[in-house]
Amino acid sequence: MNELTIELSDCSGKHLYEQIYEYIKREIVEGRLRTNEKLPSTRALSLCLQVSRSTVSLAYEQLLAEGYIDAKRGSGFYVCKIDGLYRTKDTQQKEENIRTPEADKAKYVFSPTEVDMSQFPFDVWKKISKDILIDANKELFSLGDPQGDMELRESIREYLHAARGVNCLPQQIIVGAGNDCLLMILHYLLNKETIFAFENPTYVKAYRTFADAGFPVRLISMDESGMCVEELKQSGAQIAYVMPSHQYPTGTVMPIGRRMELLKWAGGAKDRYVIEDDYDSEFRYKGKPIPSLQSSDTEEKVIYIGTFSKSVAPAIRVAYMVLPKPLLTIYRKESRFFSSTVSRIDQRILNEFIKSGAFERYLNRMRKVYRGKHDMLLTLLRPFEKKFRITGENAGLHILLTAKEECSEQELVLKAAKKGVKVFAMEDNLIAEDQKRKRKPTLILGYAGMTEKEMKKGVELLYEAWL
Amino acid sequence: MNELTIELSDCSGKHLYEQIYEYIKREIVEGRLRTNEKLPSTRALSLCLQVSRSTVSLAYEQLLAEGYIDAKRGSGFYVCKIDGLYRTKDTQQKEENIRTPEADKAKYVFSPTEVDMSQFPFDVWKKISKDILIDANKELFSLGDPQGDMELRESIREYLHAARGVNCLPQQIIVGAGNDCLLMILHYLLNKETIFAFENPTYVKAYRTFADAGFPVRLISMDESGMCVEELKQSGAQIAYVMPSHQYPTGTVMPIGRRMELLKWAGGAKDRYVIEDDYDSEFRYKGKPIPSLQSSDTEEKVIYIGTFSKSVAPAIRVAYMVLPKPLLTIYRKESRFFSSTVSRIDQRILNEFIKSGAFERYLNRMRKVYRGKHDMLLTLLRPFEKKFRITGENAGLHILLTAKEECSEQELVLKAAKKGVKVFAMEDNLIAEDQKRKRKPTLILGYAGMTEKEMKKGVELLYEAWL
Repeated sequence: MNELTIELSDCSGKHLYEQIYEYIKREIVEGRLRTNEKLPSTRALSLCLQVSRSTVSLAYEQLLAEGYIDAKRGSGFYVCKIDGLYRTKDTQQKEENIRTPEADKAKYVFSPTEVDMSQFPFDVWKKISKDILIDANKELFSLGDPQGDMELRESIREYLHAARGVNCLPQQIIVGAGNDCLLMILHYLLNKETIFAFENPTYVKAYRTFADAGFPVRLISMDESGMCVEELKQSGAQIAYVMPSHQYPTGTVMPIGRRMELLKWAGGAKDRYVIEDDYDSEFRYKGKPIPSLQSSDTEEKVIYIGTFSKSVAPAIRVAYMVLPKPLLTIYRKESRFFSSTVSRIDQRILNEFIKSGAFERYLNRMRKVYRGKHDMLLTLLRPFEKKFRITGENAGLHILLTAKEECSEQELVLKAAKKGVKVFAMEDNLIAEDQKRKRKPTLILGYAGMTEKEMKKGVELLYEAWL
Repeated sequence: MNELTIELSDCSGKHLYEQIYEYIKREIVEGRLRTNEKLPSTRALSLCLQVSRSTVSLAYEQLLAEGYIDAKRGSGFYVCKIDGLYRTKDTQQKEENIRTPEADKAKYVFSPTEVDMSQFPFDVWKKISKDILIDANKELFSLGDPQGDMELRESIREYLHAARGVNCLPQQIIVGAGNDCLLMILHYLLNKETIFAFENPTYVKAYRTFADAGFPVRLISMDESGMCVEELKQSGAQIAYVMPSHQYPTGTVMPIGRRMELLKWAGGAKDRYVIEDDYDSEFRYKGKPIPSLQSSDTEEKVIYIGTFSKSVAPAIRVAYMVLPKPLLTIYRKESRFFSSTVSRIDQRILNEFIKSGAFERYLNRMRKVYRGKHDMLLTLLRPFEKKFRITGENAGLHILLTAKEECSEQELVLKAAKKGVKVFAMEDNLIAEDQKRKRKPTLILGYAGMTEKEMKKGVELLYEAWL
C-alpha cells in the first residue's frame, strides 16, 4: 500500500495524530488494511498529508503500542495479524433486567438490623472530622498498617477491656471494613479442610461467608444455654461460631457453665477455636453487661469479633477482630499482604470519637433510648401473651414472639404484611430444619430503628392481623 | 449455706449490687460456694447486709443472666455446675515477640507501590469533605447499597467509558475497599473448582488471594506480547488474570492481536472469563492511553478491576469491579448480602471529587509530574546501558533494568542496600521459576514516590554500587 487517503479536519476537536491513528486503526479493524500489508513510511505519509513527520510518528507509535502494526528494522511498518473482530461498542447499553432489587414497601418495619440514628451526635462527629481534615497531611493519605492504625487499635483495646473484659494487646487487633472482610481474612489463616460449626438458627451471613467459600460446615442444635457442646464434640468441627452475649436470632445468653464447656472443648486440640461474634453486646438493659467469652479464655482459643455498626453507625464501616496469638503468628507470616480496608482519615475520626469520650456518652444515651423502646414494646405486646410467648428480652435490639398454637410463620408474616407491617420469620435464619424436632413458629421483631409512634401503630396493626 | 459475709464499702466507687454480685461470683469461681449449694433468699440477704431487697435482687439477676446461679421456682437460688476454671486475666499482657514488622531502613527506596502525594489538592479534598459533612444527615450514616452508591457508580462508569473505553452500566459496578475485597467477592461467584491462570511473573498479591483460598492455579509463561494463549489453552484454566495495559511487573503492553486471541479463548466456553487488572493505566506518557481489554469484549467475558489507590491516594480505600452480566446475575442472587466496605461519606466525597472535575485536573497534573520523573530517571540511567537493558518504559510508575551479564538479582539488591538504596528483585514476583528457561537478572525501579533530588542521589549511589 502506498497511499492513505485520510481526510484531516481542524475542527473535529481531535489532534491530527489522533485522526491519523484512528483512521488507520479503523482500516485494519475493518479489514481494508490486511495482515502484513506495508504502511507508507512516516516521511511519505507526512508529505502526502501535509503534516509534520512527528505527527505521523506519534500516530504510528500509538498503533505500535496497541499492537496494530509492527516495526521491522530498516524496512518499515506492517499490519499485524489480529484474530477475531475488534468492535468497540460505543452505544450506551440498555438496562436489561439488572435493576437493583427494590426496597421493601411495608410502612412499619420491625427490622432487626436497623438502628436509631436520631440521637447521633452529628455535630461532634462533624467537628472531629473537620479538625482532622485541617491537620490532614500527606501521611494520612498514604497507605497505613494493614491491621489498622496503632492509635485506633489502642483505643479499641482499652474500650474492649473496660466494657467487655477482653484481654489482648493492640498488636492482636485487626481493623476492617465490616465483619465480612474480617471473616474473609480468617479464610487465609485456617486450613481449607477446617470444619466450622454453627448454631442453628444462626446469623446466616456469617454462615454463608464460610460455607459458600467451600469450608465444610456443621449445624449444631441449641438448647436454652446455647450451642450443645456434646453435639459439637460429635461433629468433628474445629471451629465453633457462637454469639454468647446475645445469640442471633434466639436472644439466648450463654451461661458461664456452657462457656467453660465450650472453652474446654476448644482446649482439647491444637487447631480448635471459638469465634465469638459480640455483635450487639453494648446493649444490655438489666444490670451489668455480661463479660465476653474471650475474657474467660486463658488458652488463646477465642477469636473475638465486634463492630461499630450498631454502636456508632451502620455506615461507619469499621469492625475489629482480636486474634489469639497462634493465629496472629500465622497472620503475620501469611496474610499481612492484604491492605487495610478502612481509610486512615476514617480511622483517625473514629479514634478521636472514642478518645474524646463522645463514644461512651453516646453509648450511654443509646442504652437509655433502646431500653425505653424495649420496655415500651414489651408493654405494647402484653395483650399478645395469650397467644405468644415473648423471649430474648433484656438485651440486644430485637425480641422474639413464639406462637403457642399451631400455625405457620409465613402465614403470620403475610397477615402482618397485609396490614403494612413487616416482621421477620425465624425460619429465614435456619440453615436446615431439623425435621424430628418440632419447632414452634417464631417471629423476630427488631425495634431499634422505629420511633415510639411507629411502634405503637405497628403493634396495633399486628394485633388486628393476628388476634 | 445460710450466710454470706460480704463487706460492703461506700467508697469503692462500685454500686452495692455490683459488690454483692462480684463477691458471690468470686466465691463460686474459687470453689467456696459449691455446685447445687443454695444461696440465701433475697429477703434474708438484704436483712443481713442492711441493704434494700431490690439491690440483692439486681445482684442475683446478674448472676442468673451470666449463668452462675439458677432459680428454682418456689425454692430459691442454687449455684450452677461450672466446668473448668474461670479466671479473668486482669493483668496487662506483655508483648511477646509480636511486634509489628519494622519498616525498611534504606534512605532511597525505588518503591513500585509508592505514589507522589505532594501535588494532591488537599484543599479541594478538604473543602469537598467539609461541604458534605455540613449536609451529612441520618441517611448518610445508614447502610447503603452493597454495590456502592448509585451516584458514585455512575461517575465511575462515565470516567471508565471516557478514559478507558469501558462499556458497562452502573448496575454492573461494585465498589469496594481495595482490590482484595473485590477479588474475594469473586470467590463467591465462581465454582470452587475453577482453575485460575496467572502470568508468571505476576502481581503476587492477586495470585495469593486466589491460590491461598484454595482455588487451583496455573502459571502461564509470558512472551513479549503477554500471556501465551497456547499455553493457557493447554492449562485447562477457566479464568485468566491479566494486566494488558501495563503488566506488573514486566511492563509489557498486550497488543491487540493477543487481546483478541485471549477474548477468543474466553469465548470458547461458557465458564471462561478474563480478569483485567487495570491498576495503573492512568499513566501513559506517549500518545493516547491504550483502551482497556474490556472495551474490545463483545461477549461479556471480561471482569474489569481498577482502583483509585494510584490515581487519587493509597489511603482512599476505593476500588471498583465491573462484572459481566452472567456473573452479575449470580452476584445478585448469591452475594448481595455482603455489605459495602466503603463508608457512604467517603463515597460521596470521592464522587464530588470526580464530578467537580478535580479528579481529571489532578490526573492531568500527575501525568505531567510522573512523565517528568520518568524521563529524568531514563536520562539518569543512560550510563547504565552498557551493563543493563532498560524496559517497561512509556507507561506506569516503574521501569525494569535487566543485567546483560551473568549475576544474581540478590547480589545486585544487596550491593544497592549497602549504599542505602532499595531496589526490588523480579524474582520476588515470580511464583515458580521455570528452570529450563534461563531468566536474565532483572530489577524493578519505581519512581513515583521519589523527589527528583532523591532520584539523582539514588541513581548516583546505584552507579557506585553496580558499575
